[in-house]
Amino acid sequence: MISTIWLRLGKYLRDTQLLGSIHCTLYWDQNTVMPSGSASWRGEQLSLLAKLLHSRKSSKEFEDLISEASTELEQDTSLGLEEISERTRNLDLLRLELNRQKRLDPNLIVHLATAQTEGYALWQEAKANNDYKKFAPALKKLIELRQEQARQLDEPRSCWETLAQPFEPDLSIKRLNELFDPLRDRLPSLIDALRPRSYLKPLGWDLDEKSQHILCERLLNEWGRDQNITSLGRSPHPFSITLGPQDFRLTTRVVKGQPFSCFLATAHEWGHSLYEQGLPSQNHQWFAWPLGQPTSMAVHESQSLFWENRVARSRDFSERFWKHFANEGAPVRNGLEMWRSINPLAPGLNRVEADELSYGIHILIRTDLEIDLLEGGLDVWDLPTQWNMKYKELLGITPENDAEGCLQDVHWSEGAFGYFPSYLLGHLISAQFSEAMAVSLRDEGIKSEDPLGKCIRDCKESKLLKWLRKEVHSSGRKLNAEKLVKEVTGKPLSSHAFLNYLEKKLKMLTCTS
Amino acid sequence: MISTIWLRLGKYLRDTQLLGSIHCTLYWDQNTVMPSGSASWRGEQLSLLAKLLHSRKSSKEFEDLISEASTELEQDTSLGLEEISERTRNLDLLRLELNRQKRLDPNLIVHLATAQTEGYALWQEAKANNDYKKFAPALKKLIELRQEQARQLDEPRSCWETLAQPFEPDLSIKRLNELFDPLRDRLPSLIDALRPRSYLKPLGWDLDEKSQHILCERLLNEWGRDQNITSLGRSPHPFSITLGPQDFRLTTRVVKGQPFSCFLATAHEWGHSLYEQGLPSQNHQWFAWPLGQPTSMAVHESQSLFWENRVARSRDFSERFWKHFANEGAPVRNGLEMWRSINPLAPGLNRVEADELSYGIHILIRTDLEIDLLEGGLDVWDLPTQWNMKYKELLGITPENDAEGCLQDVHWSEGAFGYFPSYLLGHLISAQFSEAMAVSLRDEGIKSEDPLGKCIRDCKESKLLKWLRKEVHSSGRKLNAEKLVKEVTGKPLSSHAFLNYLEKKLKMLTCTS
Repeated sequence: MISTIWLRLGKYLRDTQLLGSIHCTLYWDQNTVMPSGSASWRGEQLSLLAKLLHSRKSSKEFEDLISEASTELEQDTSLGLEEISERTRNLDLLRLELNRQKRLDPNLIVHLATAQTEGYALWQEAKANNDYKKFAPALKKLIELRQEQARQLDEPRSCWETLAQPFEPDLSIKRLNELFDPLRDRLPSLIDALRPRSYLKPLGWDLDEKSQHILCERLLNEWGRDQNITSLGRSPHPFSITLGPQDFRLTTRVVKGQPFSCFLATAHEWGHSLYEQGLPSQNHQWFAWPLGQPTSMAVHESQSLFWENRVARSRDFSERFWKHFANEGAPVRNGLEMWRSINPLAPGLNRVEADELSYGIHILIRTDLEIDLLEGGLDVWDLPTQWNMKYKELLGITPENDAEGCLQDVHWSEGAFGYFPSYLLGHLISAQFSEAMAVSLRDEGIKSEDPLGKCIRDCKESKLLKWLRKEVHSSGRKLNAEKLVKEVTGKPLSSHAFLNYLEKKLKMLTCTS
Repeated sequence: MISTIWLRLGKYLRDTQLLGSIHCTLYWDQNTVMPSGSASWRGEQLSLLAKLLHSRKSSKEFEDLISEASTELEQDTSLGLEEISERTRNLDLLRLELNRQKRLDPNLIVHLATAQTEGYALWQEAKANNDYKKFAPALKKLIELRQEQARQLDEPRSCWETLAQPFEPDLSIKRLNELFDPLRDRLPSLIDALRPRSYLKPLGWDLDEKSQHILCERLLNEWGRDQNITSLGRSPHPFSITLGPQDFRLTTRVVKGQPFSCFLATAHEWGHSLYEQGLPSQNHQWFAWPLGQPTSMAVHESQSLFWENRVARSRDFSERFWKHFANEGAPVRNGLEMWRSINPLAPGLNRVEADELSYGIHILIRTDLEIDLLEGGLDVWDLPTQWNMKYKELLGITPENDAEGCLQDVHWSEGAFGYFPSYLLGHLISAQFSEAMAVSLRDEGIKSEDPLGKCIRDCKESKLLKWLRKEVHSSGRKLNAEKLVKEVTGKPLSSHAFLNYLEKKLKMLTCTS
């Protein structure tokens, strides 16, 4: 009898998850194959689903189930400590989410869903035609709706902080500054020191689409992709999404003149997908519970950035993989040449294409601007000027137009504010995880100053994945991001490991030039 | 005040249609990009949607809206005759569908949805491995569920007839025999007469995938495709589907050794899509009403078969298009050679690849077998033997295995029984429409014995499309298939036009050999 309520709650969550994954499937379709003329109908479909989802997530039935399950848990004397702790955490997370959903007006949900679809369509058009004014009114509307959302949520946090919670639970602007201030200080001077170097040249060669896709396929196959549960697509902005317990999708795209872009985007999105594949969600039942979900977007990004930068952009990876690029026609004659080509260290205007050094600057700029848009009074019409000013100031370059400036990223067009810091936090976490992983691999008997590098050169990335699965992926939402980092690495999250890594890599790259 | 109920009913239908189009989007995804491992989760998503849809389509709220709208219509003295007639027809069709849905047990809906997804997955596996016994139990289950469905619907029709209604309203086995018996008599002797001919040779050449896709793209562009509202994909079984008022999708696939297969499948699916694009559904409101939907699958097939056979397989089309095939490497030196190559007139085992002459035989066999499976006591385990026997008897050839035999078509794997006759009825209707179209084009001043051919050779297929839009597409479900044919052509539906067309084409092909 006693477990009946728990099972009923699980069934309820599972139906919610089914609906949610339908929503995600429409999103995937919209971004990969849907013809543009269908944006408005798709918007209505998504709004309808958003309404149904919100109603399930804020219903009296759901509230009662949570409260009965809590009572059941208190009274049940048959459960072990670990099970009690897991169920308690699940219920805490469900209650948190329920209380958030209950505070939201269903009309707002529908308006937001519609505004997101419209915003995305207008952004695509504005970006294609380099016409920011086409997008500005939609952005303004999205900001107002998000401000209204934060008001309705009524949390003891600022507007931007409230909106950032679904991505980074517990994040505050104060803590963000503590973590980012050392980067604000150090990154510009590191970039400046590089300016006179001779190797800051554009590549000057390219690969055709087919070759790039062959290389991406090889990468994923070497990294153990299972074709029965993964699917590849193309979209203007690469992304990774999970549509079911056995349904992992990722997209990439080819950028003219940047022969490594598609390859690195694939590595990045595959890192996201590996995290989702490693979550404790391999059976449907668990898939629906909060503990089976990713703990934060910063941890998510730490996984994608790890595979993109720590692995695919490492010297050892180049030593092993350069021949495949050469076979497809890339003018690289050895690992060193590939390594230098794939690590150009040239400050550019594009975040996704950025080197590891200037990447942080892109995020600092976006974070400042979106906080300013949401709670600092920055007018959407002033965004392009502010954007360009900050790029000039921090990276020394100015976008030629808004398409390569403030229109370059998809996030704001979907009303996603509070997401950008996750990328930089992800860099920090990835660096700190990498240090802990190195210690652990050495303990396992891998005799090398750089055990990660050794595994990579020997095609044994499975050892890295094994560590990540055990230490990170399998814990799901058991701990919030900072607590997870502390538990896994023994140290509180900071920028030390990332800055150390950057300085070391920089030294190696400049020594070999 | 008075139109309030009508608007509320429209809003209700629209939300149902939104949900229905979400269901279709999942179907599209499942058949084009979904990884195979996700079949079971997708099945649950589709079941959940099927349940939601059934509940909307059989709800008390819906019933009340229909009945209030009927009362409103009776009392409204402000409406014109045409509007009254349209509203009456809409309400009649809604009432018919409501009554059907109300009779169905929601549990059956869920079981059917699950069985369809499972059946489709098992069919794919069985076909790939030529392993009918893998699929047979799923087929048996689908048959039992459909028999149960017919019992619950409790219509004054046989089981198979009841299941055929959603595809062909008003169809009976008796009427089907009246229409098909002349074909049963005549087709085998026409095929037999061809056997000694020398041109029954396999093609012996092929085109690579890229070339085939270039030719398909050219075809669709010449036929006026609007990229903003259409999207192309690939799937093992080509299909066309509408996912929204501005969202028309079609798929095709390349078959090794059959360089025209992909091209003809594209023409076929485009014909389906043109019908949907021409329905009176260009605004969302209308899209949700029955009158804005296709009237029957036979009429649907008449449109796809028209573009595939009457246009793409015509002599005039070959005269105009052969150079593009030659440019891609096809060894055809003139229109006549292409025409003969694209009209091989060789009885084969595959329905989709069949020539116009033996196509009907494929349908007669399937129709007999599925009627036998549903109401004649044919056991699923005896299906392969029966299938092979009938092929031997009617076409003189026997499948080497079940993959090219009874496993070749997708329909039964999705529990779609009663669909196959629509293809052959479509041939009949297409032929009868073509005769009427010729008269009309001559009346418009196109001086030619074969005005359709003249338009095709002059790249003026838009004139054919204009006629179809006006006479067929725009009438939606105003009239059931046979009534529509009578109204448009002035004659009751029969096999005369089709048999005349076949005999004439045969004569031309054999004269030029």
